[in-house]
Amino acid sequence: MARCTFLGLGVMGYPMAGHLAGAGHDVVVWNRTAAKMEQWAAEHGGVSAPSVEAAVADADFVFACLGDDPDVRSVAEKAIPAMKPGAVLVDHTTASAELARELDQAARDAGIGFLDAPVSGGQAGAENGQLTIMCGGEADTFARAEPVMDAYAKASSLIGPAGAGQLCKMVNQICIAGIVQGLSEGLHFAKRSGLDPALVIGAISKGAAQSWQMENRWQTMVKDEFDFGFAIDWMRKDLRITLEEARRNGARLPVAALVDQFYADVQAMGGNRWDTSSLIARLERDL
Amino acid sequence: MARCTFLGLGVMGYPMAGHLAGAGHDVVVWNRTAAKMEQWAAEHGGVSAPSVEAAVADADFVFACLGDDPDVRSVAEKAIPAMKPGAVLVDHTTASAELARELDQAARDAGIGFLDAPVSGGQAGAENGQLTIMCGGEADTFARAEPVMDAYAKASSLIGPAGAGQLCKMVNQICIAGIVQGLSEGLHFAKRSGLDPALVIGAISKGAAQSWQMENRWQTMVKDEFDFGFAIDWMRKDLRITLEEARRNGARLPVAALVDQFYADVQAMGGNRWDTSSLIARLERDL
Amino acid sequence: MARCTFLGLGVMGYPMAGHLAGAGHDVVVWNRTAAKMEQWAAEHGGVSAPSVEAAVADADFVFACLGDDPDVRSVAEKAIPAMKPGAVLVDHTTASAELARELDQAARDAGIGFLDAPVSGGQAGAENGQLTIMCGGEADTFARAEPVMDAYAKASSLIGPAGAGQLCKMVNQICIAGIVQGLSEGLHFAKRSGLDPALVIGAISKGAAQSWQMENRWQTMVKDEFDFGFAIDWMRKDLRITLEEARRNGARLPVAALVDQFYADVQAMGGNRWDTSSLIARLERDL
Amino acid sequence: MARCTFLGLGVMGYPMAGHLAGAGHDVVVWNRTAAKMEQWAAEHGGVSAPSVEAAVADADFVFACLGDDPDVRSVAEKAIPAMKPGAVLVDHTTASAELARELDQAARDAGIGFLDAPVSGGQAGAENGQLTIMCGGEADTFARAEPVMDAYAKASSLIGPAGAGQLCKMVNQICIAGIVQGLSEGLHFAKRSGLDPALVIGAISKGAAQSWQMENRWQTMVKDEFDFGFAIDWMRKDLRITLEEARRNGARLPVAALVDQFYADVQAMGGNRWDTSSLIARLERDL
Ligand SMILES: NC(=O)C1=CN([C@@H]2O[C@H](COP(=O)(O)OP(=O)(O)OC[C@H]3O[C@@H](n4cnc5c(N)ncnc54)[C@H](OP(=O)(O)O)[C@@H]3O)[C@@H](O)[C@H]2O)C=CC1
Ligand SMILES: NC(=O)C1=CN([C@@H]2O[C@H](COP(=O)(O)OP(=O)(O)OC[C@H]3O[C@@H](n4cnc5c(N)ncnc54)[C@H](OP(=O)(O)O)[C@@H]3O)[C@@H](O)[C@H]2O)C=CC1
Ligand SMILES: NC(=O)C1=CN([C@@H]2O[C@H](COP(=O)(O)OP(=O)(O)OC[C@H]3O[C@@H](n4cnc5c(N)ncnc54)[C@H](OP(=O)(O)O)[C@@H]3O)[C@@H](O)[C@H]2O)C=CC1
Repeated sequence: MARCTFLGLGVMGYPMAGHLAGAGHDVVVWNRTAAKMEQWAAEHGGVSAPSVEAAVADADFVFACLGDDPDVRSVAEKAIPAMKPGAVLVDHTTASAELARELDQAARDAGIGFLDAPVSGGQAGAENGQLTIMCGGEADTFARAEPVMDAYAKASSLIGPAGAGQLCKMVNQICIAGIVQGLSEGLHFAKRSGLDPALVIGAISKGAAQSWQMENRWQTMVKDEFDFGFAIDWMRKDLRITLEEARRNGARLPVAALVDQFYADVQAMGGNRWDTSSLIARLERDL
Repeated sequence: MARCTFLGLGVMGYPMAGHLAGAGHDVVVWNRTAAKMEQWAAEHGGVSAPSVEAAVADADFVFACLGDDPDVRSVAEKAIPAMKPGAVLVDHTTASAELARELDQAARDAGIGFLDAPVSGGQAGAENGQLTIMCGGEADTFARAEPVMDAYAKASSLIGPAGAGQLCKMVNQICIAGIVQGLSEGLHFAKRSGLDPALVIGAISKGAAQSWQMENRWQTMVKDEFDFGFAIDWMRKDLRITLEEARRNGARLPVAALVDQFYADVQAMGGNRWDTSSLIARLERDL
Repeated sequence: MARCTFLGLGVMGYPMAGHLAGAGHDVVVWNRTAAKMEQWAAEHGGVSAPSVEAAVADADFVFACLGDDPDVRSVAEKAIPAMKPGAVLVDHTTASAELARELDQAARDAGIGFLDAPVSGGQAGAENGQLTIMCGGEADTFARAEPVMDAYAKASSLIGPAGAGQLCKMVNQICIAGIVQGLSEGLHFAKRSGLDPALVIGAISKGAAQSWQMENRWQTMVKDEFDFGFAIDWMRKDLRITLEEARRNGARLPVAALVDQFYADVQAMGGNRWDTSSLIARLERDL
Repeated sequence: MARCTFLGLGVMGYPMAGHLAGAGHDVVVWNRTAAKMEQWAAEHGGVSAPSVEAAVADADFVFACLGDDPDVRSVAEKAIPAMKPGAVLVDHTTASAELARELDQAARDAGIGFLDAPVSGGQAGAENGQLTIMCGGEADTFARAEPVMDAYAKASSLIGPAGAGQLCKMVNQICIAGIVQGLSEGLHFAKRSGLDPALVIGAISKGAAQSWQMENRWQTMVKDEFDFGFAIDWMRKDLRITLEEARRNGARLPVAALVDQFYADVQAMGGNRWDTSSLIARLERDL
């Protein structure tokens, strides 16, 4: 069993840290807003720490799941110098590949290992311990961290060097942008045509139009229910990071760029916290 | 066993008619280009007819699988008056819902049944007898035709009144347009980022970015292979019909309309017969 | 002075026919809804005719300004056979190039001249006699018709053979689609940024961002006033014709196709009769 | 006459500084690459300075025209502390509004005035002294700087507080993105239709489709000539800054976002330095 620290007990981090404790690891937690770490400690019998530095000092593995680049940078600046040589820092935040490379270098300089390790699977995946983890970093660092991450992962994979985990997550979000917009237009067209969406989905959901989003979201989309899932504010952050990376690597993402603007339409409708499937609301609600 | 006629022995119709014969039905075929129907008759021991009228005269069920609206209209104008009262005409062509309604009316006037019954599953589905059939029409007409169509279908469903089969197929194509463009942008981004696409797909193909297209097309897309599958010329026909229908029903299809133009880019690259997954070629080839 | 007939006394045709009369031509008018032609005859002292055939029988020049392809086709089918050999038919409707070629052939067969001659300049241009006319047809036919059309034109030009006038009008509409959407996004951004639109337009309206639309529409756009001008229903008809033509000639029109869908958004807001500049309402109103 | 310093003698800054000297001001110049400032001093009889600090020490007005945010920030960090109290810093770089607000604050703290003052009019405007200048800042600072900027401006205007000049320039670029893409599609369609572009432009360039871009760029666009003008790399920088600002102010810019991706297509064709009108090359060259 390993000595683990978890930084950031949000929607994702809270249950992830819980699975580490449940798997028998020694877990120290830290969260900016103290109430959450106290609640966690009470619930899981773990230890909360008064500062990032205190939280990480004895850890073999430090996991973080925060918000955006600046959040990670500010926390990592405190964590890295305070970590033991030979320890490993794993960042589960969806952030930029550039930040990952910057943290990787800082970690090397400090004699510690680093993985960028964004996840997919959402809140449900975090709660059920069924996340998919996409990692960038050294093979031996990955080999050491993977068994620990198994506490909350159904699959982890090493995609390439530092930053590759983040880049892989960006591919994931690009694919989702196209799928969800296509599905939204399809369901909107079906409703406009007077078709019964259940019959339509029954007919098309086994073939070339099938997608995870179709199977898992069509019912709530048709019912105009979006009060759950992966929030548009997060999605737009991810698309922002992705479009910025595309400026560097030269990739052209016309539909991802357009869908990002359509998500801004949904934000203007008040949908900041709605699930990504709410793209359909742009089409259905303004009538 | 039923007396069946099949009109149009193209990539789809040829094997579909073959499955009817294989299931023990009496099959008469007709094809505009005579060579194909002679080949079919030789291969399947069926009968070819010299004209549409002759082909349909004794049939209980007449199936058609032709090209576009005008093709269906010209053939149906000959077939309907020549059919027996009480027979059923099933149109497997992907065509407009308006044509379906028009043919339904003409069939009613002639005392015969009609189903618009576009299929999905592609050439492979036609050859393996594993098509999905989306039908519009009367319930009792569907009930009579379904067991016969079972010769080449893995699933048939009645979506609604005349035209509903075509509308359902349009929903299918709308969804595909978004999915394939998203997947193309994702794989293009992955390559531009220097990632190994196999590792990326391994990591993301079980979650929220999953799609039939991802599972069945990523490898050929990455290898720039498009010489198979569902041709762009057909896809643009389907999107044209869909966008015209959207003008009538008021649906807004921004990404389907845009992807239709991107398919025109691929046509300009010489891709008229390439698979729909060739949207990625726009992004990869011009470098 | 010529013997002229005008078919179609709508928003455009009514004042155009009036200018013909004002210029001293003998004018016979016909309109499907009789009240309008009676009103016109009363106002201008001209003659209204009970049928298309009667209206055109003695004319040297027959002008039409109707709605869409089917309207023109149904009227022309009556007019062409009833016209005198050597007379000229000028169609001012914005319609397809294919229809123009079809009418040109029918006119040739009947021994009459034909011009497709869509106009720009809007209702104001028709009322002030300041239209721009884009013509397709034979040079000598154009030479004969131009002096007569001068009654309501500030400029007429022969662009090429039959259909070229319509194709030129399509170029016009494609350009407008991009300009108005760009201007809408620009003004929307200015308002969101808290800038005074008048100061912004003052600063940018002489340079590389200048357009007729900016000069003539920014004020009403900022005030959310669209109850005038060129109706979205007409614009969508024109874009439909244009996108269909692009399918034939292989042109790629991604932004025109997208803006056409945005116009559908405005129609869904109730904007069928609003001016084309109402694209900004999609951005401003849903907040 | 004023004591002026000009920082950054690029395509724009070099002739702008020249006009200051020509108007009789005392001009000190500084440029990162020394050769250019020596050339300038030789040509204009002005003085070059060995460092930013030395260049600005005695100036009443310091003008800068550099590349992007980080360039301005690094130069301003040296300039502001070295400037005389009461002097004015004018930044002609197209940069972010956030940077403008940050520099405005730093200038206030140092007791100097600040204007963000991006320009339009391009290289030709800089050379002819006919730029348009859009300013953000205090009215009295603007009142002091305007007469000096008159050396190279045909019009300067104060749009609002610090940042407003940059925001106004963003509106300009948003409008251009839509106009140029619309014009590209229009000319591409005209060529595909076999029309003579000169006749088309002759017919439509006085009406609702008119734009500065149409008047000034159609000929080079049709000839596929882009080796001049405002470079795509600069345009993408400007659109990046604009799209980032839109994330903050909530504006939706679907076509600007899409056109930005189309510019990336042109970059992938090798067009980094081509004029913004080269959007048409995407449509014309790949055939
Ligand atoms: N939610 C989801 O379904 C998924 C989310 N993700 C990604 O995971 C990450 C976390 O998401 P989620 O858990 O939903 O987010 P939450 O907003 O629920 O949690 C964010 C956590 O980060 C902490 N935090 C944020 N900024 C700072 C800072 N500057 N300094 C210190 N702590 C900070 C917050 O602390 P405090 O409690 O004090 O606010 C909180 O613990 C994001 O990058 C998201 O994109 C990835 C896949 C799915
Ligand atoms: N309005 C504008 O600003 C501009 C319009 N145009 C184009 O000019 C054309 C006319 O526009 P506008 O005048 O505004 O349209 P209106 O709707 O005002 O007028 C249409 C005219 O066509 C007649 N008409 C329509 N269909 C038929 C038919 N099937 N049989 C006989 N008559 C018919 C109508 O007759 P009835 O009175 O009986 O309905 C009416 O006289 C359109 O193609 C439009 O796109 C071009 C530039 C600008
Ligand atoms: N060109 C045009 O048509 C227009 C340009 N603009 C804007 O004006 C600005 C300048 O454009 P332009 O003159 O064409 O650009 P150039 O590339 O020709 O010149 C850029 C200038 O900035 C200097 N510079 C860049 N980075 C730094 C740095 N980090 N430290 C010090 N100096 C630096 C360069 O110095 P060095 O010589 O050492 O490289 C050079 O003098 C840009 O923001 C552009 O967007 C606005 C309207 C039109």
